[in-house]
Amino acid sequence: MANEYDHGDFTLPGEAGYEGLTLELAKKWGADVIRDSDGTRLSDEIVQAGYGIYSTICIIRQHNAFAQAHPDSQQQTFLCSDPVVAQGSTVTLQPLDGYFTEQFEANASPDALPYWQVWDRTANQLVPAENWRLKNGAVEVTGCTPWHEYTVSFLAWRIWEEINMYNHTTNHWTSEHLRQLDPRHPLAWAYLTQWLESWCQENPDTTVVRFTSLFYNFVWIFGSDLRRRARFCDWGSYDFTVSPAALRAFEEQYGYALTAEDFINQRKLQVTHMPPTPAKRDYMDFIQAFVAEKAKVLVDIVHKYGKKAYVFYDDSWVGLEPYGKRFSSIGFDGLIKCIFSGFECRLCAGAQVPTHEIRLHPYLFPVGLGGLPTFSEGGHPEKDAMIYWRNARRALLRQCVDRIGLGGYLHLTQNYPAFVDAIEQIGKEFRRIKALQKAGPAYALPIRVKVLHTWGALRSWTLSGHFHETYMHPLIHINEALSGLPVEVSFLSFEDAENGALDGADVVINAGRAGDAWSGGDAWRSDLLVEKLTEFVHRGGAFIGVGEPSAVPGYHTYFRMAPVLGVDLDTGARVCHGRWQYETDESLPILTDPEALGCKEHLYLTDGGARVLFSAADCPQFTLHRFGKGLGVYMSDFSHSPEGDRMLLDILLYAAGLTGKAPYVTDDYRAEAAYYPSSRTLIVINNAEEAVSCAVSLPEGGKLNVALSPLETKEISL
Amino acid sequence: MANEYDHGDFTLPGEAGYEGLTLELAKKWGADVIRDSDGTRLSDEIVQAGYGIYSTICIIRQHNAFAQAHPDSQQQTFLCSDPVVAQGSTVTLQPLDGYFTEQFEANASPDALPYWQVWDRTANQLVPAENWRLKNGAVEVTGCTPWHEYTVSFLAWRIWEEINMYNHTTNHWTSEHLRQLDPRHPLAWAYLTQWLESWCQENPDTTVVRFTSLFYNFVWIFGSDLRRRARFCDWGSYDFTVSPAALRAFEEQYGYALTAEDFINQRKLQVTHMPPTPAKRDYMDFIQAFVAEKAKVLVDIVHKYGKKAYVFYDDSWVGLEPYGKRFSSIGFDGLIKCIFSGFECRLCAGAQVPTHEIRLHPYLFPVGLGGLPTFSEGGHPEKDAMIYWRNARRALLRQCVDRIGLGGYLHLTQNYPAFVDAIEQIGKEFRRIKALQKAGPAYALPIRVKVLHTWGALRSWTLSGHFHETYMHPLIHINEALSGLPVEVSFLSFEDAENGALDGADVVINAGRAGDAWSGGDAWRSDLLVEKLTEFVHRGGAFIGVGEPSAVPGYHTYFRMAPVLGVDLDTGARVCHGRWQYETDESLPILTDPEALGCKEHLYLTDGGARVLFSAADCPQFTLHRFGKGLGVYMSDFSHSPEGDRMLLDILLYAAGLTGKAPYVTDDYRAEAAYYPSSRTLIVINNAEEAVSCAVSLPEGGKLNVALSPLETKEISL
Repeated sequence: MANEYDHGDFTLPGEAGYEGLTLELAKKWGADVIRDSDGTRLSDEIVQAGYGIYSTICIIRQHNAFAQAHPDSQQQTFLCSDPVVAQGSTVTLQPLDGYFTEQFEANASPDALPYWQVWDRTANQLVPAENWRLKNGAVEVTGCTPWHEYTVSFLAWRIWEEINMYNHTTNHWTSEHLRQLDPRHPLAWAYLTQWLESWCQENPDTTVVRFTSLFYNFVWIFGSDLRRRARFCDWGSYDFTVSPAALRAFEEQYGYALTAEDFINQRKLQVTHMPPTPAKRDYMDFIQAFVAEKAKVLVDIVHKYGKKAYVFYDDSWVGLEPYGKRFSSIGFDGLIKCIFSGFECRLCAGAQVPTHEIRLHPYLFPVGLGGLPTFSEGGHPEKDAMIYWRNARRALLRQCVDRIGLGGYLHLTQNYPAFVDAIEQIGKEFRRIKALQKAGPAYALPIRVKVLHTWGALRSWTLSGHFHETYMHPLIHINEALSGLPVEVSFLSFEDAENGALDGADVVINAGRAGDAWSGGDAWRSDLLVEKLTEFVHRGGAFIGVGEPSAVPGYHTYFRMAPVLGVDLDTGARVCHGRWQYETDESLPILTDPEALGCKEHLYLTDGGARVLFSAADCPQFTLHRFGKGLGVYMSDFSHSPEGDRMLLDILLYAAGLTGKAPYVTDDYRAEAAYYPSSRTLIVINNAEEAVSCAVSLPEGGKLNVALSPLETKEISL
Repeated sequence: MANEYDHGDFTLPGEAGYEGLTLELAKKWGADVIRDSDGTRLSDEIVQAGYGIYSTICIIRQHNAFAQAHPDSQQQTFLCSDPVVAQGSTVTLQPLDGYFTEQFEANASPDALPYWQVWDRTANQLVPAENWRLKNGAVEVTGCTPWHEYTVSFLAWRIWEEINMYNHTTNHWTSEHLRQLDPRHPLAWAYLTQWLESWCQENPDTTVVRFTSLFYNFVWIFGSDLRRRARFCDWGSYDFTVSPAALRAFEEQYGYALTAEDFINQRKLQVTHMPPTPAKRDYMDFIQAFVAEKAKVLVDIVHKYGKKAYVFYDDSWVGLEPYGKRFSSIGFDGLIKCIFSGFECRLCAGAQVPTHEIRLHPYLFPVGLGGLPTFSEGGHPEKDAMIYWRNARRALLRQCVDRIGLGGYLHLTQNYPAFVDAIEQIGKEFRRIKALQKAGPAYALPIRVKVLHTWGALRSWTLSGHFHETYMHPLIHINEALSGLPVEVSFLSFEDAENGALDGADVVINAGRAGDAWSGGDAWRSDLLVEKLTEFVHRGGAFIGVGEPSAVPGYHTYFRMAPVLGVDLDTGARVCHGRWQYETDESLPILTDPEALGCKEHLYLTDGGARVLFSAADCPQFTLHRFGKGLGVYMSDFSHSPEGDRMLLDILLYAAGLTGKAPYVTDDYRAEAAYYPSSRTLIVINNAEEAVSCAVSLPEGGKLNVALSPLETKEISL
């Protein structure tokens, strides 16, 4: 691409001691900003070289002296002991048995102990306080029912900031364990605001304070046994925000008290992938208000010093959801998202904030995700970079961000010139895509897709964490597929659907496991929801159900949308019911990718009218069912891949009656196209690592043949 | 085997027109009894040849003239229409749409119509009677909620006896459709008893009246569409016993009324594989009492004429369960079971009745099960006979029956001399096994296995129908495996387990899908049950859970027996919880057969202490978990096969501490042994179709080498 795209909108991680390299790469990659990284500090030579300067601050961390002086200002959580079977009328519970005691310390202080609870988990009954006592750190329970299981729920101090703990345990760091302060503690809050004031004064060259991120980490609970080091990890859970002070404030504001069990939830904890209890919804709102209020104070301080405030959306982000109703009120100038996938680009690009920046992968670190080498022997960082870029590119073609950047240790690139070249190329491609969209948006098909789940817009594009942490949920695959398709995408909650939001939809997608937040669980007990969606399809809309969509027990069908889908799942009560026989229909103009579909048992056709596109385990796995003027589509599972993504596009086209009529669609699933009418420019991308020749459909019915080299981004003027 | 075993205890199906063949085969096979078959009649030459004579009677069938004169004496059932989505405030339902109208006729008579119900299935609400009316056979519903689904439940006459219907539709019979009378109808009952009196008078040569069987067929509902001909088939359901008269009598006796919904059950019907409602339990008891009372009258008539009364346990058997508390009171002289499998032999052999007879397969018919040829081109009836005998033999070695026999058309054997020889051999082997047990029972290991499920002893050995109809339930595989193992087996209900029945157990097995009758569903909400079983294992017992044992939602674990098993299943709420890592342990002396085990997702180790013998889908599939002095064993699935059966035996031996110490155990899973101490005789059988050489363990620690030809039964004197 042309030279005009070789500079700007690029954040380079500088490295002290490598000033020459930093400035050299800043020039080669066209950086306009240099940032520091976790645990690094930029030298004056870099800071004063005329670049914008991002400085990373983890506001609640790196205050160990204060934490030691005020141990009660540290953050907490509820934990629950592993259950113990009573063999007689007494049982002794060791609260922290099985937990990583470098992370946790039981909090039995006078304001915490009243929140402790002992449960008979067999009988699902709270044990009266008079039946247990804490002695030498152990809980002695009397009056037990023999052969029942008992647990103790308790508050624990979190004495090791989790990201620091992760870096120590994974990357063998040996420095002092960092602690984390709770901004709800008045002394800590006064200290932190004062600290930020001083920091701003002491760092006049910093143009952007990069908060990484705010106060409360996602929930990450380590175990003592290396066979179960990660006891729990949920990027969306709120347990790490809790404290007696928070619980008291909540009670005052909401008029009812939360207990340990509101968090422990039968030892299951409150997983983001499950529908929240009403109390959890209240508690999230309570924390979001608190985070927004405190964050605004910090942002105002930064602004006072003429700097901008960006927030890195990872790590201690809980309560600042970019699609939460209070996010804009904080006043951040930018949102930075580390991305592996297309859905993360869309998440970043769509947030209401002036500047959207993505941090590309690979991170400049010897070892990457899952322990495989990156910038070390056996690593191919240039290949990794192109594959991550391939993931991001199709999403950016739909909706671009404002900036890209890297993170980590720059010196590691020295032996990888191919990587340096790849990043240069990626920078140019990014700038060209951004420029095209600045001139006008990409052409989108007249298909408005609404993804329907418990969280709705709050968790637009994301579930809870990165793709590789949520791959077992079909919805993350759907989101990833959608991130690069030429359709309009938004996210609805069930309440939205009940209150008119289907009016603006052509296709509604519900994808999840029975009972989870993505399928919806008890939300499907709403007859109104069923009515609205049924009517929506009958009048011409399409409903795509994946996995166990609209599933809830207690009705005559397990999938509430069975009349629309023409498919249901037998939970066992229909094992004696004959099944409609069917033949697989291969005549439809829809790429059917068995790899992307499931092999699920117990599925059956309800009225025999569905067309079965794919069958496995003697069950229909992929079906189309006409309902009124609309269409019900069922897929037993969905996996993102170029084939899978194309299958989804084909379904959308078929549902919209656009099969064979849509412009700017390729005839090879490995290639995708985006057209920018304002620039009369067509971009065709090759998502495959081999050369691809394809034809792109044109509006007047013609075709344009395009030959693409591996992973190529090709620009064509029309 | 010796000549003394070439005669007796064999029932031959005679055939008129083939008198010579009948008498020749009677001699060759050593028959002492000749029977007629469905639709055949023995000639005088056969009847007077000195053999015992069984005559088959289907008491409620073959009275078409009476049925036509008294159409209200026919049997009925509740049906439910397929659901229809209301597009406005009215909807019209066609009750019989989709049903086979040669089988059903709606009953809208004045005593039936009050039992009809219209349901809003979306809202789970009964539609008030004033909101619908029957007009020209259709149900017109007003006041509908748009986009809700509506159904009508209604009584229907059953105008074609189902076995006759099956033979017509499957075997292309063209004779008159037979109808069936309801013995609850006073005129019909008077007619039937009188008819039986006359029959007995007219058939003086008959020594045994073979009731095939009594009054009410298992539930078998045909559809109008050949793509769904079998809408429903459950060998244990009671729906075909219903009538307004029965419902009135029930209400009078139990003090509450049943409604259509008690049977229709949200269109799911009351499947035997699911736990019954309390009302269904009452209704079953009510019908069982009725059947027993009426059957006794018939048996008394037969006895009055100096004949014996046997009952064939198939077809119209509902209410006469051989392990029901009233079965003995009927006074049958014999129970005849058609068998494909070992569990059916044990079912027959263990019933409280003087004579136990099994009807072997193949049935003498051109085509066998599943439409494959038997006595026609491409058929190998001699091979089929040996394979069915192989299935039965291992069960008979544990507990023998009194008689064997065949059914069908004898002339079909004429071109199959190898079959004739095979039956001769089977007859001799059977008589030898019977003689050994008459001298004294087979040696059994000191392992008392109790199979725990909803129905307990009532459904000892069986689920609902034959193996090939219930293969999707792991318990039928367990039962089939157990039928030939050298252990004591009995069947417990959950109430039994709560009331002391575990005292006599060494091993308890619970095998099923969550919520079904075999796993137990809500029965596991009983803390007492959990306590009793937990204590049982802690004190040294073994609990074997298969599939989703003890599963019920609402507790901190999904498997209530998780503390014992050391394994649980994540229903989704634990998707963020780390899993214990494990290594597969191959050091245990237990044959681990991946084919017999499952590949189930979402399983995890609860406390990390279980030993994993087999892993798939990144989950433990087969585990052993020490609990107190006992053992929890988990298998994600279980399939019967020689390997699978041996795996189960190995588990039982390991649980009992008898590994390597048990006598009369082979060292090859294909061969099994049974020892008869009273006769000092060892029988070793080869279950494989190839030759096997194996060693059999002896009590003093020695081994006996045995060479077996394919499928051989070898007798060795010790």
